[in-house]
Amino acid sequence: MNKTELIAAIREKRSFLCIGLDTDLHKIPAFLRTEKDPLFTFNKAVIDATYDLCVAYKPNLAFYESLGSAGWASLEKTLRHIRDHYPGMFVIADAKRGDIGNTSGLYARAFFEEMDFDAVTVAPYMGEDSVKPFLEHQGKWTILLALTSNRGAADFQFSEDKDGGKLYEKVLRRSLAWGNDQNMMYVVGATKAESLASIRAIIPRHFLLVPGVGAQGGSLEEVCRYGMNDECGLLVNSSRNILYASGERDFAEAARNEALNLQVDMEEELLEADLL
Amino acid sequence: MNKTELIAAIREKRSFLCIGLDTDLHKIPAFLRTEKDPLFTFNKAVIDATYDLCVAYKPNLAFYESLGSAGWASLEKTLRHIRDHYPGMFVIADAKRGDIGNTSGLYARAFFEEMDFDAVTVAPYMGEDSVKPFLEHQGKWTILLALTSNRGAADFQFSEDKDGGKLYEKVLRRSLAWGNDQNMMYVVGATKAESLASIRAIIPRHFLLVPGVGAQGGSLEEVCRYGMNDECGLLVNSSRNILYASGERDFAEAARNEALNLQVDMEEELLEADLL
Repeated sequence: MNKTELIAAIREKRSFLCIGLDTDLHKIPAFLRTEKDPLFTFNKAVIDATYDLCVAYKPNLAFYESLGSAGWASLEKTLRHIRDHYPGMFVIADAKRGDIGNTSGLYARAFFEEMDFDAVTVAPYMGEDSVKPFLEHQGKWTILLALTSNRGAADFQFSEDKDGGKLYEKVLRRSLAWGNDQNMMYVVGATKAESLASIRAIIPRHFLLVPGVGAQGGSLEEVCRYGMNDECGLLVNSSRNILYASGERDFAEAARNEALNLQVDMEEELLEADLL
Repeated sequence: MNKTELIAAIREKRSFLCIGLDTDLHKIPAFLRTEKDPLFTFNKAVIDATYDLCVAYKPNLAFYESLGSAGWASLEKTLRHIRDHYPGMFVIADAKRGDIGNTSGLYARAFFEEMDFDAVTVAPYMGEDSVKPFLEHQGKWTILLALTSNRGAADFQFSEDKDGGKLYEKVLRRSLAWGNDQNMMYVVGATKAESLASIRAIIPRHFLLVPGVGAQGGSLEEVCRYGMNDECGLLVNSSRNILYASGERDFAEAARNEALNLQVDMEEELLEADLL
């Protein structure tokens, strides 16, 4: 899925919502746990109830890996369900991988070939040759961690270089030479909205994947004020608020209502920015 | 496995070798590819041929994930084989994970509970709350990336702070408050041996996991000169040189010979340092 198609999907659905499939066996409704594949059953119901309100799904790999090969199979089935029923959906493997070149190449193979994700989140600590193998896959996206939404972001990401820049700014600047706005995006946490203006000065055209709205306390309005560009340029993620809106039999309907609330707010932001 | 037990194993086996199970379906002997589970069959043969020469095995997750749930099952079988036949072996999941707290908690559950690894490699970019969930598992180890063996290490890890320190030194210093030498180790590439002396000044008692000897060009002698302490303090990893010593039916024997060469060199280093 290329950038033009992604922007078209945002306009068509009047939404830049990404739903994070952080599907936790311990948090899904109890009655689902007796199913043969509870994670997939849950995901399928949530996806079937929300596909028209979002442009992207983002399974977080940890939730599947924590169940071993069975969890991995649930992930594969979830992706296949999206591909079979909802063409044109952008699907992100939130994996935060990154290793020496030949190993990153295998992670890229895992997510882009063995499975058919559109994008993978990648950690920058190991530098260029740990990121490039992901960029070699035509038509796929690398989403590099820049400024994350968690408290620990302060430990290293804000480290001030002797030349005055912060580490996350160095990650943005240096990685500009590795890819472009057609194959790279950046993770910027909604809880760091005040940094979005300076980030946009460095990467005006790149899409940003923004976690942290909702459960983590970020504000959609602020994210849009500082981060939106004339192509929208944002995928705003919500996970827990949508997935666990209800712990009862109406969980999918409740998830839809939460997603709808966000879609309505996003439509308003798109209208205000003259994007619709 | 605690630090005392690890040191005892090093003395007993006269080796601080870690064998990296970077098992690539495209590189194992062709005749194995028709097996029902080629990765496990290969790993089992290599492990059975080398277990007395090494103190640790380190499967690299990328190689298993690139085969989807089948690869994940091969990994689980490999770990079970080691646990069933070679008690006292230190087994590292080379996963380079790291995410916001609740997600890192699930990765920790995946590697320490769902599977029974002794240690996981973790990336530091997201800071304290991305690392701490791994440290909460009693009797387990977190191996934090500090200075990696690849070329891209130069992109960010050597970034000079306005106070004069390098990013990898800041990672070492700051993480000292998160854990201790009984539950943390650090990855320091053998290709950066000249940095080992200054690293030892910051973390004199921690074990270091040292990749990059062999295929990547690092020297065992230099690693020992600058990195060994009076408890050894080193796990030196070799992967490709051992695994792919032969592409024929004698692959396990050839792997043993390569491992034996390293063990002999390591025994010499241990003797020179009065550790045996």
